[in-house]
Amino acid sequence: MDLVAIAKLIGAEYEGESFEVTGMNTLKDASNSEISFVSSSKYLKDIENSQAGAVIVDAKTKELVPKGSIALVVENPYWEVARLSKEFAPLIEDKNLPEPLLGKETQISDKAEIARGAVIGNNCIIMANVYVGANAVIGNNTILYPNVVIYRDCVIGSDCIIHANVTIGSDGFGFATNKMGEHKKIYQNGNVVVEDDVEIGSGTTIDRAVFGSTYIKKGCRFDNLTHIGHNCEIGEYSVFAAQCGIAGSTKLGRNVVMGGQSGMAGHLEIAPFSTFGAKTGVTNSIKESGKTYSGFPHKEHRMWLKLQAKLARLIK
Amino acid sequence: MDLVAIAKLIGAEYEGESFEVTGMNTLKDASNSEISFVSSSKYLKDIENSQAGAVIVDAKTKELVPKGSIALVVENPYWEVARLSKEFAPLIEDKNLPEPLLGKETQISDKAEIARGAVIGNNCIIMANVYVGANAVIGNNTILYPNVVIYRDCVIGSDCIIHANVTIGSDGFGFATNKMGEHKKIYQNGNVVVEDDVEIGSGTTIDRAVFGSTYIKKGCRFDNLTHIGHNCEIGEYSVFAAQCGIAGSTKLGRNVVMGGQSGMAGHLEIAPFSTFGAKTGVTNSIKESGKTYSGFPHKEHRMWLKLQAKLARLIK
Amino acid sequence: MDLVAIAKLIGAEYEGESFEVTGMNTLKDASNSEISFVSSSKYLKDIENSQAGAVIVDAKTKELVPKGSIALVVENPYWEVARLSKEFAPLIEDKNLPEPLLGKETQISDKAEIARGAVIGNNCIIMANVYVGANAVIGNNTILYPNVVIYRDCVIGSDCIIHANVTIGSDGFGFATNKMGEHKKIYQNGNVVVEDDVEIGSGTTIDRAVFGSTYIKKGCRFDNLTHIGHNCEIGEYSVFAAQCGIAGSTKLGRNVVMGGQSGMAGHLEIAPFSTFGAKTGVTNSIKESGKTYSGFPHKEHRMWLKLQAKLARLIK
Repeated sequence: MDLVAIAKLIGAEYEGESFEVTGMNTLKDASNSEISFVSSSKYLKDIENSQAGAVIVDAKTKELVPKGSIALVVENPYWEVARLSKEFAPLIEDKNLPEPLLGKETQISDKAEIARGAVIGNNCIIMANVYVGANAVIGNNTILYPNVVIYRDCVIGSDCIIHANVTIGSDGFGFATNKMGEHKKIYQNGNVVVEDDVEIGSGTTIDRAVFGSTYIKKGCRFDNLTHIGHNCEIGEYSVFAAQCGIAGSTKLGRNVVMGGQSGMAGHLEIAPFSTFGAKTGVTNSIKESGKTYSGFPHKEHRMWLKLQAKLARLIK
Repeated sequence: MDLVAIAKLIGAEYEGESFEVTGMNTLKDASNSEISFVSSSKYLKDIENSQAGAVIVDAKTKELVPKGSIALVVENPYWEVARLSKEFAPLIEDKNLPEPLLGKETQISDKAEIARGAVIGNNCIIMANVYVGANAVIGNNTILYPNVVIYRDCVIGSDCIIHANVTIGSDGFGFATNKMGEHKKIYQNGNVVVEDDVEIGSGTTIDRAVFGSTYIKKGCRFDNLTHIGHNCEIGEYSVFAAQCGIAGSTKLGRNVVMGGQSGMAGHLEIAPFSTFGAKTGVTNSIKESGKTYSGFPHKEHRMWLKLQAKLARLIK
Repeated sequence: MDLVAIAKLIGAEYEGESFEVTGMNTLKDASNSEISFVSSSKYLKDIENSQAGAVIVDAKTKELVPKGSIALVVENPYWEVARLSKEFAPLIEDKNLPEPLLGKETQISDKAEIARGAVIGNNCIIMANVYVGANAVIGNNTILYPNVVIYRDCVIGSDCIIHANVTIGSDGFGFATNKMGEHKKIYQNGNVVVEDDVEIGSGTTIDRAVFGSTYIKKGCRFDNLTHIGHNCEIGEYSVFAAQCGIAGSTKLGRNVVMGGQSGMAGHLEIAPFSTFGAKTGVTNSIKESGKTYSGFPHKEHRMWLKLQAKLARLIK
């Protein structure tokens, strides 16, 4: 899709030469053949050094678009990003992809479906009613229990155990909203990468990135019914008790521990070896490693205990 | 099933003519060929104007049953409602229904199962291991990702995207309990209606109504692992972050936003454009629209912030 | 596997005769042909009366191993338990087991998979994309809705209703961690036993025991997306609202009620007829039956109300 067509689709005016646009990406990561956007003032800091070939902006941001990048001016940039994201979404299944490649000694149930373009390693067990999407890659010695769903383009490492009814790679929660309160989907054109030696409990869901990848580093342990939002990065050997959840784009260092039913806001950075008690709600980034937190909003565990003691006295 | 048989089944005495009972319903919605009940004093207000052909009541409520309606007197009305609900439950699958009707350009995986009586629109994608139950209806251009389950009689609109491992139409959480602490299931004989342009995240569950419908209005957005109880009505363009839940019979106006891991009690009415922060627990109805709430029990967000500031001072 | 081989595998020295080890078990439950371990000081009380044939311990615990039991001394006992647990894990599927046994009048979808060794009772309905694992047993009149997964060796009673996308018997959340922060899986070689007349809501997960059984007693009712950890024992007629969770090894008396999004820590004992409000976090055992609790940490409901009143005054 070239820039002329894109400008027409989103109703934008622009000055400059058209070029073949190969994809959409963030200001930080876009190359000069990609198109990016400014949807919120918090990303303005990234515009100056962006290599994007073109940037979708509103009128008041136009001046900030760097030379060498073409400004596409629209009224509601995020809405137009949503509209455009659909154009770059890959097909859910693609008959032009090659037959899936299956490793040696791998057992695949005849009730499983492996889509075209998928590659499955050696010595895996793929059980009944599993779905592995287009171009997905599974390492060696990995077990997919019944009814696991791996969406297209996702990558699962070796020596992983993925329990029943887990979903990996479903769309991240992304949409633009207009003045009428209507929503338009931001197609999630990234993937999920799960490294080696990860175990994922039944019913857990891990969303694909809008661009790039949601990363689960090696050795992580997920209990049941946990949720990881799009574009998260989960550090090595991190541990997630049942029913905890992490909103999008949050980055965890290694060996972070989250208690049952705890939650984390999006766009945070969490220092390694941080521990969060059950039901903790983490609202800010954590810079110092190795500490333990509880409560909502989270506070150091010993402060939370102190607070509980004070509150107990209040009602005596 | 006629009234004589019903009275015998539930061990009730009554005065009046028998008639063919066509179904069970609430006091408000029952027609004169239907049977209703008073299971709790909070529904007593509805008895006076009920059109129900017969009403299951205990001895002390008998006098309130309006003329033209027959009182069936039993000791534990809700227990007998449970017993009777089973008689009106439709078959899970029904071989007498016609072959399913499939629209044009619709792709259906040979690993999906479409039950008899179902109707699927044009240009849909129905992926592997999906189940669409008896008499369910799916609109046009709708995508059901792998392992989605739509129970019988449910209706899904057009342009919907339903992610992997979602369940729509499972039984609402209903049962009667006797003095021995034993439970008896209230069969959930209603359905779920999802309107157009709704996206539902992986692992989410939406329960069918006990009578009538659970409604999800157009344009709603659900993140992963959310739960909607039976008989809820969710207003247009409402947004549900991951792992939030709404108990039965709660009604939301349009553009309500629920944060991650937030919850709502049953039988509430929530004004449009209300916003609830992460982990909020909503315990009462909300009449004024456009406000933001946090905490459990919920309070206006700025009051919650004030409370957190006070508490922080307590432990300084 | 004999003791010599085990000692070699885990790098332990020991004094005494080798014997054929038939399994692993807790100090309390191990027989003299089984091997047990002390992984934490909280289990030290059980060592004195243990009948275990051998016990994996660290050097400082060696002296406490009773006569008649052989001490296997290692540096990190739990890590070696993890290593050893894999050796005793049964095959996920076993071609040497007999064809599954199916009862009379039982309907099984041709899209369901019933593994070898399974036994299914009379008059059941096993719907599309269900998986019933090796040696699993299902009673009479039980309904498994689409995409239910029952792992191997689990036992489901009669008259149960298990809704779509439920997982029963997935691995409990168990692993050892070394000084490097790496984890090693504790294979979960027990099962789940669900007694008669239990209904389980869609998306719920119940984990198998590490040794022995996770028990769900008769008449329990689970709403959607609830989680029960390994080795829990849930008393008769207990009730679980949506999205509540119980950590491992907690034991509930009969008719316990848990509100929506409530949670319970592991290793607790909860008196019968206890009730917990929505979002309650239960942190300690409860000895007196029949009371109602709220808050986190949980307190008696009337005290929680009092606290809320005090807090409301704080911000007036």
